[in-house]
Amino acid sequence: MVAFPPTLERLVQLLSTLPGIGRKSATRIALRLVESPRAECEEFARVIVAAKTTTRPCSICGAYTEDERCSVCADARRDQSVICVVERASDVPALERTGRFRGLYHVLGGLLSPLDGVGPENLRLDALASRARTDGVREIILALNPTSEGEATALYVARLLSAAGVRVTRIASGLPVGGDLDLADDLTLGTALEERREL
Amino acid sequence: MVAFPPTLERLVQLLSTLPGIGRKSATRIALRLVESPRAECEEFARVIVAAKTTTRPCSICGAYTEDERCSVCADARRDQSVICVVERASDVPALERTGRFRGLYHVLGGLLSPLDGVGPENLRLDALASRARTDGVREIILALNPTSEGEATALYVARLLSAAGVRVTRIASGLPVGGDLDLADDLTLGTALEERREL
Repeated sequence: MVAFPPTLERLVQLLSTLPGIGRKSATRIALRLVESPRAECEEFARVIVAAKTTTRPCSICGAYTEDERCSVCADARRDQSVICVVERASDVPALERTGRFRGLYHVLGGLLSPLDGVGPENLRLDALASRARTDGVREIILALNPTSEGEATALYVARLLSAAGVRVTRIASGLPVGGDLDLADDLTLGTALEERREL
Repeated sequence: MVAFPPTLERLVQLLSTLPGIGRKSATRIALRLVESPRAECEEFARVIVAAKTTTRPCSICGAYTEDERCSVCADARRDQSVICVVERASDVPALERTGRFRGLYHVLGGLLSPLDGVGPENLRLDALASRARTDGVREIILALNPTSEGEATALYVARLLSAAGVRVTRIASGLPVGGDLDLADDLTLGTALEERREL
């Protein structure tokens, strides 16, 4: 059986390592790339390296930026009294897209997971504690995944900040908007029942 | 709304132009890239450009190769008496994977499509006609898509080669193996009926 020539084959293999890309998609993408103009391939190569080189964590919140501070931290019109804590820098754009949050962010850089060797010292918790003690900070919203690691981390952060005199809240768990009660798993439905709200 | 920093955003946009990649997958891939080691990003960039630079059409059949001749044309053990005609160079690996064909290939470089301005002069038909007249060539198999352009091109090629004294065949159309009669479209099922074979 003849495969692709070695360099094309190597491109297919590299593409297959990307999330959500199997061998078939990788082949389609590789062929599209080698059949597009050389300038486009060079642009692609340049942008991959440039994105890697220029993207770095914001010195305050840890979100992605190309500058010292991210565009949220640098924006004086954002509500400085609320900080939303997320696991990863990639969670910030998802929350921004909702258009419902005008405060600041704090990226933890992971979740507590003793089995994987991730302890409190591996997360950006000291920075969070010191931000929480800043004048004018009223509320810390924990926007962590509703998983066991997320729960454990949320409880740990709440205890850590209990001395700072700020309100610590957690985003709601329940049925997805537009979702179907029938299709919800037991845990989600149970949580939705428990966390019911007064109308 | 804050998006990603500009270079990361540009990477997401470029990735979204690839086949089968939407905005969400592009975001996941871009984040994976910027969070992987710099050496991996550079390897990726290098291989994209290298694949584009080194991959070229085989001087005989038009399949992908890095050399003058592709690995099929350079392999003297292949059956030199049968040539399988395909639309694109990317069709060759699909046929090779079947393990059922030991002959040579010929890439047309497209299908006849007067509406898109693709006439016989745009396809590698002269090269095919001269290969068909080579001593020892007995059969030309047309492995073109079973679409109207594929049919039209197959008929044109068959007429073109009628003088060369070779057998011209076409791969079968019918139900996919393991497929379901219920789910087959009318045209496929009709063709499967018409092209039925003696048991």
